Amino acid sequence: MANPSRQAVNFAAPRGFATAFKADCKETFFPDDPFHEMKHEKPLNKLKKTIQYFIPLFEWLPNYNLRLFRYDLLAGITITSLAIPQGISYAKLANIPPIYGLYSSFIPPFVYAIFGSSKHLAVGTVAACSLLLSETVGAKASPQDDPTLYLYLIFTATFFTGIFQTALGFLRLGILVDFLAHSTITGFMGGTAIIICLQQLKGMFGLIHFTTHTDVVSVLGAVFRHRNEWRWESAVVGIIFLAFLQFTRYLLSLPIAKDVDMYFQRQKRPKLFWVSAIAPMVVVVVGCLFAFFAHAEKHGIQIVGELKKGLNPPSIQYLNFDPQYLPVTVRAGLITGLIAMAEGIAIGRSFAIMKMNFNAGCRTAMSNVVMGFCMMLTLLFLAPLFRYTPLVALSAIIMSAMLGLINYDEMIHLFKVDKFDFVICMAAFLGVSFISMDVGLMLSVGLALLRALLYVARPAACKLGKIPNSSLYRDTEQYPGSAPIQGVLVLQLGSPIYFANSTYIRERVLRYIKEEQGVSDSKTDIIEHLLLDLSGVSSIDMTGIETFLELRRILDSKGIKLSIVNPRIEVLEKMTLAKFTDAIGKESFYLSIEDAVQNCRFSLHSSKTTMEESLNDQNVV
Amino acid sequence: MANPSRQAVNFAAPRGFATAFKADCKETFFPDDPFHEMKHEKPLNKLKKTIQYFIPLFEWLPNYNLRLFRYDLLAGITITSLAIPQGISYAKLANIPPIYGLYSSFIPPFVYAIFGSSKHLAVGTVAACSLLLSETVGAKASPQDDPTLYLYLIFTATFFTGIFQTALGFLRLGILVDFLAHSTITGFMGGTAIIICLQQLKGMFGLIHFTTHTDVVSVLGAVFRHRNEWRWESAVVGIIFLAFLQFTRYLLSLPIAKDVDMYFQRQKRPKLFWVSAIAPMVVVVVGCLFAFFAHAEKHGIQIVGELKKGLNPPSIQYLNFDPQYLPVTVRAGLITGLIAMAEGIAIGRSFAIMKMNFNAGCRTAMSNVVMGFCMMLTLLFLAPLFRYTPLVALSAIIMSAMLGLINYDEMIHLFKVDKFDFVICMAAFLGVSFISMDVGLMLSVGLALLRALLYVARPAACKLGKIPNSSLYRDTEQYPGSAPIQGVLVLQLGSPIYFANSTYIRERVLRYIKEEQGVSDSKTDIIEHLLLDLSGVSSIDMTGIETFLELRRILDSKGIKLSIVNPRIEVLEKMTLAKFTDAIGKESFYLSIEDAVQNCRFSLHSSKTTMEESLNDQNVV
Repeated sequence: MANPSRQAVNFAAPRGFATAFKADCKETFFPDDPFHEMKHEKPLNKLKKTIQYFIPLFEWLPNYNLRLFRYDLLAGITITSLAIPQGISYAKLANIPPIYGLYSSFIPPFVYAIFGSSKHLAVGTVAACSLLLSETVGAKASPQDDPTLYLYLIFTATFFTGIFQTALGFLRLGILVDFLAHSTITGFMGGTAIIICLQQLKGMFGLIHFTTHTDVVSVLGAVFRHRNEWRWESAVVGIIFLAFLQFTRYLLSLPIAKDVDMYFQRQKRPKLFWVSAIAPMVVVVVGCLFAFFAHAEKHGIQIVGELKKGLNPPSIQYLNFDPQYLPVTVRAGLITGLIAMAEGIAIGRSFAIMKMNFNAGCRTAMSNVVMGFCMMLTLLFLAPLFRYTPLVALSAIIMSAMLGLINYDEMIHLFKVDKFDFVICMAAFLGVSFISMDVGLMLSVGLALLRALLYVARPAACKLGKIPNSSLYRDTEQYPGSAPIQGVLVLQLGSPIYFANSTYIRERVLRYIKEEQGVSDSKTDIIEHLLLDLSGVSSIDMTGIETFLELRRILDSKGIKLSIVNPRIEVLEKMTLAKFTDAIGKESFYLSIEDAVQNCRFSLHSSKTTMEESLNDQNVV
Repeated sequence: MANPSRQAVNFAAPRGFATAFKADCKETFFPDDPFHEMKHEKPLNKLKKTIQYFIPLFEWLPNYNLRLFRYDLLAGITITSLAIPQGISYAKLANIPPIYGLYSSFIPPFVYAIFGSSKHLAVGTVAACSLLLSETVGAKASPQDDPTLYLYLIFTATFFTGIFQTALGFLRLGILVDFLAHSTITGFMGGTAIIICLQQLKGMFGLIHFTTHTDVVSVLGAVFRHRNEWRWESAVVGIIFLAFLQFTRYLLSLPIAKDVDMYFQRQKRPKLFWVSAIAPMVVVVVGCLFAFFAHAEKHGIQIVGELKKGLNPPSIQYLNFDPQYLPVTVRAGLITGLIAMAEGIAIGRSFAIMKMNFNAGCRTAMSNVVMGFCMMLTLLFLAPLFRYTPLVALSAIIMSAMLGLINYDEMIHLFKVDKFDFVICMAAFLGVSFISMDVGLMLSVGLALLRALLYVARPAACKLGKIPNSSLYRDTEQYPGSAPIQGVLVLQLGSPIYFANSTYIRERVLRYIKEEQGVSDSKTDIIEHLLLDLSGVSSIDMTGIETFLELRRILDSKGIKLSIVNPRIEVLEKMTLAKFTDAIGKESFYLSIEDAVQNCRFSLHSSKTTMEESLNDQNVV
């Protein structure tokens, strides 16, 4: 009966558990296969490359030269001029003395120059993390009433952040990051930008009393409740600074390309990058001069105040592991670590920002070393000069930076292309704006996971028909020209089959059969063969295989023969182990739909012939 | 340049949001499409069929006759004889007066006869739920110190269970059930069977003091701590009863078919079903007679004690909504509802038990009505007779029922076929046995979901080669005979592409290219075309599309041309909306790999010819 020309399905012996498990682990934790290139190297070279992999410094340093240094020097100085005002500003955001913002920009660049793998990234302070730390730790210790305790708790929280991020790296748990959808990040960044901007209204209006909450309602409430504290002088200066900063950004981003590639072409004029990079420093210097000469303090414009000269004092002895505060510091550390990572990806994904350092002209991570040295010089000699920086200037710098993080275009794009993605994005955006940063993030991640699980629970299936004049079988809905095959129903299943969708798949397949038989009233069009194309089914579990067994039993009772087309290696292995292959017979497995259909036609035809023959026989009798 | 004979990809206009959304909702919540058959009916017929769908009673009652009733009568009586001892036993398990077990078996069969959709299922008490209720509610109110409060809280919890299950039904949230893997259910049933068996050691040994914990360690500890209370008379009677019950089960299940179809063939002798169904009643009757005539109470064999005559008194006025107890009753109600559902599926899935009622000879849900009437008669007249039932007989009945729920064969099968499924099963089994029922269930469900998410995060991808003498392209790993195409890399992606796996897919594709170019040192074998076969990709989100855009940019920089083969309708719609289709050009979309390869070869060939020609030109010059 079997068509002799058909290509055979390969029923090789299943791989051993250890082999399959090792392969799975490798794909799960080392998807980038970092050691692939070293496989064929000599042991000594292998060691060298491994060290270079973990400490990229050894890769670029030997080939470094003075020509490259010229670029890195300029880049380093540019970044420093951005890092100083940002450091001071974000320290204020975290409610800690401004000098700690400068400390934070001094050591990390050196560390990154040694261990960092990207030559385009610059290291710096992150606004969302600063705000998050002050929000979380501030709930337990007041920065006003007990600033020392508050500061030490912040130290401890950042310590836990470091431990947590190191652990993530060593355990190769970057996979966690895969579960943050782009839409979540867009919404989260936008939301944090909004609440950080609103926080700046305090500085802008020169307010003295404010709220510790971060949500839109509380903050706007606090601003309007303290109308009597508003200082117009402060507001005017702030608006001028903000306008200047926004103008330099505008210069840079003009014209924005309004097409699909806009993410990669946003910065049409990279040569002008230094203008927007240096602008915050200009604001600080102008602000200092203005405050110094105009005695701004007397006109209601608050200044930063004393900044101590000197490098970071060691702070390890201040870590506070008091069980009373441990839960809050650990929690703050964990969330900050996750959010820093999320921001890192957001920055990595949006090329415009990722190339910051690159636009600044840098060629290697040496620019970070330059930045570190510049920060050192600043701390040693220049720090006291910044004492006159008006708070309103810092607020303007933060606001300007944050306004750039609200990606309206992307949100509109999401709305147009994928409504569910838009909802995920809005959950983060509105959740962060109106409730709190962690609630917003969790809401959005929860929705994204729910969607992932729905994909999994309701996989797409479709009926295939034959495209005329070809051996191709395609979705009849998508290609209305494709023709069904008489007596044969061809279904294509997609995605893994397992517990979460096996019941659905059984129902769906049976429904297709019911629909098919409902359409044709005549008894001749009855389905005799069901072909399941499993090309797109990448894996299966026990519940899935049992569903197939049950399906076969049901089909048997309806007189329909089940055949499997092109099962993938993992699926075929499990089917063989579970004896499903034996149950339906190896001859029911086909390599292509065309093969299977030919064979089915053959059996359809032969059964008809037999029937006709027996009729003839009866006639003869 | 383009091959004129190629079949075209169908770039129809994307469906509107409303259409796609409606279709998605329908597939998610109504996968069985219950109203499909009614679509073409007249309005009156439609109404009739809708009523019949919700109240199946109207479907079978009009055709009911006396011949069918003969079978149902026998079936109903058989089930009653099983329900009475089970009801009393499980009430003891829940620490409530035994009469409530009988009450619980009286009303529900009538309700099920009206609304139930399966004619093979019998309604009864569930051991796991009884234990769970006593464990959860017992933590807040002691059944010994304040039995009335405890009883009322149990009422309230079961009330919430009902509300919860009704809500699940109305909201079509049966999808929740899809997330319980078969392995989870096997492990959970086994684990609860173990702990319920151990609970029976109290009755078996005639202990007076015991523990309220359910885990193996606590229970065995309690049994051995109270060695002084052990009564050998009780143990001997218990073991005799248990041996009898197990023997009747053994009769029924012999021989067990040891093949793949064992789930469907376990009961080789359905005619003997009534022996094992009636056995518990025999034990109760013999036990009562023995206790009555031998004055068993005086020999340390405890008896059930007073059972009031009469039907269920209304209990709605005893529902306790005191805020103090509300959290515990709501929680107990929710978990019980979920677990009852899980057990329902487990029973539905394991045919042996599902067919219980069917084996007993029933033909329609009328058997439930018979059972209800039998229970009524029992309550009205016979209940007091059961007061002499020895507790040890109840323990033997429960133990025997539970021992049948531990599915060793299935666990061994899981171990052989799928190690991860085995781990999921063991998590439930050991979690329930050694920690608690809810922790065990959550552990197992968590692991199963983790696996689902890993499937999603690390989808299978493979390199395709051409199978000689055909136009088929298959996994080169699975079919070592398939040959790669010079200059063209064909990759097949499976499962939905979205945020959780887009980074991985990008890395994986780039790694394939790196590997390919690493293999061939000669410059002639360089990849010029990358074909992505998306037949198995059932959906995509924004992050996924952006990954494709980025991939294309990277490929461009390497001089590799990206083409897409056979995108499915949902994927093509999103690609068109996101302008990806325009970005890479409609001519880069192919309907089949063969088409795409032919076209690539054409362009490869022509570029080579051009090169040769230009070389010739140079020679001429």
